[in-house]
Amino acid sequence: MNKTMYGVYKAEAAPGAVIREDLPIPAVGGRDVLVKVRAAAICGTDLHIMAWTEYAQKRVPVPMVFGHEFAGDVVAIGSKVTEVGVGDRVAGETHIPCNHCFQCGTDNRHICENMKIIGVHVPGAFAEYISFPVDCVFDIGDLDYNLGAVLEPMGVAIHGVDAAKVEDQVVVVNGCGPIGLMAVGATKAWGARRVIALDIVPAKLEAARAMGADVVMDSSQTDAAAAVLKETQHGADVVLDYTGNLGAIQSGFGMLRKGGRYVLAGLPNGKLEIDLTEDIIYKEATVIGVTGRLMYKTWDQCTDLLKSGKFDLTPAISGVYALRDFEKAFADINAGAPGKAILIP
Amino acid sequence: MNKTMYGVYKAEAAPGAVIREDLPIPAVGGRDVLVKVRAAAICGTDLHIMAWTEYAQKRVPVPMVFGHEFAGDVVAIGSKVTEVGVGDRVAGETHIPCNHCFQCGTDNRHICENMKIIGVHVPGAFAEYISFPVDCVFDIGDLDYNLGAVLEPMGVAIHGVDAAKVEDQVVVVNGCGPIGLMAVGATKAWGARRVIALDIVPAKLEAARAMGADVVMDSSQTDAAAAVLKETQHGADVVLDYTGNLGAIQSGFGMLRKGGRYVLAGLPNGKLEIDLTEDIIYKEATVIGVTGRLMYKTWDQCTDLLKSGKFDLTPAISGVYALRDFEKAFADINAGAPGKAILIP
Amino acid sequence: MNKTMYGVYKAEAAPGAVIREDLPIPAVGGRDVLVKVRAAAICGTDLHIMAWTEYAQKRVPVPMVFGHEFAGDVVAIGSKVTEVGVGDRVAGETHIPCNHCFQCGTDNRHICENMKIIGVHVPGAFAEYISFPVDCVFDIGDLDYNLGAVLEPMGVAIHGVDAAKVEDQVVVVNGCGPIGLMAVGATKAWGARRVIALDIVPAKLEAARAMGADVVMDSSQTDAAAAVLKETQHGADVVLDYTGNLGAIQSGFGMLRKGGRYVLAGLPNGKLEIDLTEDIIYKEATVIGVTGRLMYKTWDQCTDLLKSGKFDLTPAISGVYALRDFEKAFADINAGAPGKAILIP
Amino acid sequence: MNKTMYGVYKAEAAPGAVIREDLPIPAVGGRDVLVKVRAAAICGTDLHIMAWTEYAQKRVPVPMVFGHEFAGDVVAIGSKVTEVGVGDRVAGETHIPCNHCFQCGTDNRHICENMKIIGVHVPGAFAEYISFPVDCVFDIGDLDYNLGAVLEPMGVAIHGVDAAKVEDQVVVVNGCGPIGLMAVGATKAWGARRVIALDIVPAKLEAARAMGADVVMDSSQTDAAAAVLKETQHGADVVLDYTGNLGAIQSGFGMLRKGGRYVLAGLPNGKLEIDLTEDIIYKEATVIGVTGRLMYKTWDQCTDLLKSGKFDLTPAISGVYALRDFEKAFADINAGAPGKAILIP
Repeated sequence: MNKTMYGVYKAEAAPGAVIREDLPIPAVGGRDVLVKVRAAAICGTDLHIMAWTEYAQKRVPVPMVFGHEFAGDVVAIGSKVTEVGVGDRVAGETHIPCNHCFQCGTDNRHICENMKIIGVHVPGAFAEYISFPVDCVFDIGDLDYNLGAVLEPMGVAIHGVDAAKVEDQVVVVNGCGPIGLMAVGATKAWGARRVIALDIVPAKLEAARAMGADVVMDSSQTDAAAAVLKETQHGADVVLDYTGNLGAIQSGFGMLRKGGRYVLAGLPNGKLEIDLTEDIIYKEATVIGVTGRLMYKTWDQCTDLLKSGKFDLTPAISGVYALRDFEKAFADINAGAPGKAILIP
Repeated sequence: MNKTMYGVYKAEAAPGAVIREDLPIPAVGGRDVLVKVRAAAICGTDLHIMAWTEYAQKRVPVPMVFGHEFAGDVVAIGSKVTEVGVGDRVAGETHIPCNHCFQCGTDNRHICENMKIIGVHVPGAFAEYISFPVDCVFDIGDLDYNLGAVLEPMGVAIHGVDAAKVEDQVVVVNGCGPIGLMAVGATKAWGARRVIALDIVPAKLEAARAMGADVVMDSSQTDAAAAVLKETQHGADVVLDYTGNLGAIQSGFGMLRKGGRYVLAGLPNGKLEIDLTEDIIYKEATVIGVTGRLMYKTWDQCTDLLKSGKFDLTPAISGVYALRDFEKAFADINAGAPGKAILIP
Repeated sequence: MNKTMYGVYKAEAAPGAVIREDLPIPAVGGRDVLVKVRAAAICGTDLHIMAWTEYAQKRVPVPMVFGHEFAGDVVAIGSKVTEVGVGDRVAGETHIPCNHCFQCGTDNRHICENMKIIGVHVPGAFAEYISFPVDCVFDIGDLDYNLGAVLEPMGVAIHGVDAAKVEDQVVVVNGCGPIGLMAVGATKAWGARRVIALDIVPAKLEAARAMGADVVMDSSQTDAAAAVLKETQHGADVVLDYTGNLGAIQSGFGMLRKGGRYVLAGLPNGKLEIDLTEDIIYKEATVIGVTGRLMYKTWDQCTDLLKSGKFDLTPAISGVYALRDFEKAFADINAGAPGKAILIP
Repeated sequence: MNKTMYGVYKAEAAPGAVIREDLPIPAVGGRDVLVKVRAAAICGTDLHIMAWTEYAQKRVPVPMVFGHEFAGDVVAIGSKVTEVGVGDRVAGETHIPCNHCFQCGTDNRHICENMKIIGVHVPGAFAEYISFPVDCVFDIGDLDYNLGAVLEPMGVAIHGVDAAKVEDQVVVVNGCGPIGLMAVGATKAWGARRVIALDIVPAKLEAARAMGADVVMDSSQTDAAAAVLKETQHGADVVLDYTGNLGAIQSGFGMLRKGGRYVLAGLPNGKLEIDLTEDIIYKEATVIGVTGRLMYKTWDQCTDLLKSGKFDLTPAISGVYALRDFEKAFADINAGAPGKAILIP
């Protein structure tokens, strides 16, 4: 094995990133694994890092390789690793748990109180190799690497749908980016009575239809809350937000029936001005925040859905690029391509 | 029986109310019962009606008798009533369900889509007699009338505690007015690991201690969120808000642990500016709105608690007055008396 | 309206029944409705009554009209009825609640402690008219009468599936009579990951396949528990029993994974000898008994499923007969016809 | 450190055990810890092993040290252990998980499909030292060693109470051996409305009273089911069985209300003949099997209860002995001493 590798390098505290050819292959600590990356996917967080937004400035230490949705082969393991071996095909959980806090001790490692995030706080996966803690390894078996690389964002979608309890429910999925699209598919597969998908981009609504939505609505062209109330008579049983848009989140309260459940997964910028009396208390709404994925119940649910034949990811993947062409992939996403972009090192 | 009665009468759209001697005894419809009121209690809503706030102006048709927390004896029943008989000792559920909407059809009459409220939308109980639908009758058996009159507000407290699932949990009760005090008692009786009560009035904190709080904190004298975090190490499992105060509600999010449950029962004026990302999503908080009481599971829980010996209402009742002295009772409450005021017609 | 009607009459305490032409049209009490029966369906209980088994001898007072799955038109209402009117299209809930016991007071009228059953304890629906309490009326809107008549047994199926929580679960449905078949359809519609249907009659397994089963197994030809373990690797998440057969119920424990849920809906004759240590305790199984249907959540779920397009009842209905031909209908069922038989008065 | 130690040795496949002085101190594998035992407790399983019952003959390989409830100090760790260090004060979880099966992968390691049990399948704790996997280490902080040694059986009690959801419920605890007694205490601490404790030994009923039972009944002197029905009017909301006695388990069904929950924790010998129709289906009972303890939610609950001041273990501990006096401790238990016996090496 060489001593160096190439990768996408955030060299300085400014917009952009470069390919660097002579990066050292990361060291492998006692509880780490070294993985040869076979596929990686671009997350909304990566757009922040590329654009060097305030979100990124606050969190990301430069210089650093970023990227955190990936799959590949284990090529080395640390001296205290017993769980996996060289040659295993794996994906990576992004959330690194501390294993010592209250949350880690109660089967909630995904919301560890001392969590670090791969590709944000520590070096990431847009490179030939990545070293990360064995706690974050998920064995993908014979799953395709490209699918393996999208298990992580798919987990965000599925974790939200799981928290919502959609069986026999009328469900609104608000926001049909890659994660919302995967949520549409899971909501349908898990027995929702009716799935209503909302977005403002026609191509994304088409993709939502392909993922199984019963009704799609362009929320830029209509009063979405009123339209959902009309469609459902007394409001939706469940609203899932994957927009992170404050206006869209507000309108979701108007769509929800009394006693309904509102799952928030998309991360808004800024604060919401909310009328708690009307929107939560008199409505007896339950608002459920979700983040990340359960380790590893959600991962199992994702792989099972992919193997079930009930869930076709195709509409949620928009393109596959060589890692060296990362700038084109980012540009396409910024131009509105629906679905995930995959990078192959 | 006379044809007239006396009662507290909101004669015009302005602050105040008067005793009127010659009010007609209310008519009894086919599904109504006529009750001779033996005890009534003053609710925060009644303060709004007396003061003629915007809340009252929007909802209350004058002239009208108001008041909605009460107990008494059935003295007449309508032609289509089969459930109760003359002589039964009863209290009244304030929320009149329509019996036809989706919520009524799914055992959630307390959040009926077409709900009317006794003493707010239709005439109330600060009088010798009240006529109201048999759907809203709760048989109090041999329970004391004064306790019967506080079952309704106690139900608000207990419904919130029930929704919160407090068994073996570290619980913050924010706001120690009469309802918060009853919530402290129920939280303790139902097996919370530790109950932390917050208020800004020392007399109310003393009452909270008497109701069983393990820790009390004057939130006007300390950074309550920081103090709770210090006391609990990783935050409270459950926060119950009975303040309806926007600042207090905001501070509650800071007290809550990751994965915790936040029950909102107090009704705020105005909107909360909330950082959904930090306070709900990254925290995986569940926010649960509650209003009213389950018909009639909560009522049964209240009477069982009162009979259990584990729950002493004394600290939550501050005085008993003749109905004709209603102005003094309202004045005492406005002056800060902790606990409920009871009016006897 | 005539004073008399015809109906299927259980004239004496012996096998069989007869058509009687001069039965009095039933009286209508203050809280009753009189319904002109448009369709009725035959239940397993009716087979007991026809054959005059020990089950029937213990419960049914003769002489009496029996039959309890039905739909029709309201033609008269009692003096204290406010909920429905003449001309409404309705079906009948079989379980008559007392409205006074603990269960009735806690939204569990379907397991009322003093329950009476239409067509078993009190006169039934195999006739031109039936009078029954308004508490048991379910408005079917514009639903076809034949479908209205099977809502009651469909409710048994759906109540079991609802209790099982099948979303994303591997589910075994044991027993593919009419109720088991409807359970297969609901399990599939509500998002089970995989549905395995078991029976010993090939025609019923074919019907199960038509209702959406992913896998069907003839449990007379194989060790069903071993076959399910092989198919599922670590056992089924959920087993639903609609056989009421002791051997089949026993084998279900062998199919269940550790931590799984076992819903019992079929009524066995005789006692089961069960090894609690191996089958429930070490396995951490949860065994859930279900009977009847929730009033009226389950009824709403049934009508929604029928209107959803995801649930086709056709394979679960085997024939439609004139009520006067009831003997042929019973004979066909006894000969093994899969699915429900409908009788038209 | 010496190379040898003394311990209680099951030398051959026959009743009894001996103290052996020259046992090798156990080897420490890569993921093991070596603990100096400071306190151990006697479990019912140990009685089987001493008496060499069929249960023991089937499971225990002789010769071997047995005993599995213990606490002590870490004195050495394996080369791949990172979670604990020398000097830590710890107790041991008895169930050794495989970390690879479906259950281990879904946060249910306590019902691992390939579980091994310390002191049953592999050498145990009635000795100066024990070596066991780090997965089974629980840090007891500054908890007393004697209490640390009973966390394991206390976990069986608490896991059952937790599964039962006792808040505001009327609860029967059947069986007041050490585990039943601890369940009484937890049921009371966690807010049960009323706790009824049953046993056939007066001393154990006295201890149940000391642990907080509201009502105690000698089930050898009365028809326990009838007595509970009388006491509760419509039956208990929850029945917890810690007897493992078939007759007692059967009577528990008679005590349970419709819609109630029945938690089975005691392990019966032989099979129960059960009338599923009457006892589970028509009753809509939920029967929940529990075994072991959650790793490590239950352990945290136990230590919190012990520190809460709401739970006094004293009545559940009957004696403390030197390990060399183990035969006297076993004799005292067999003679009916209520509560746990502690052995000090």
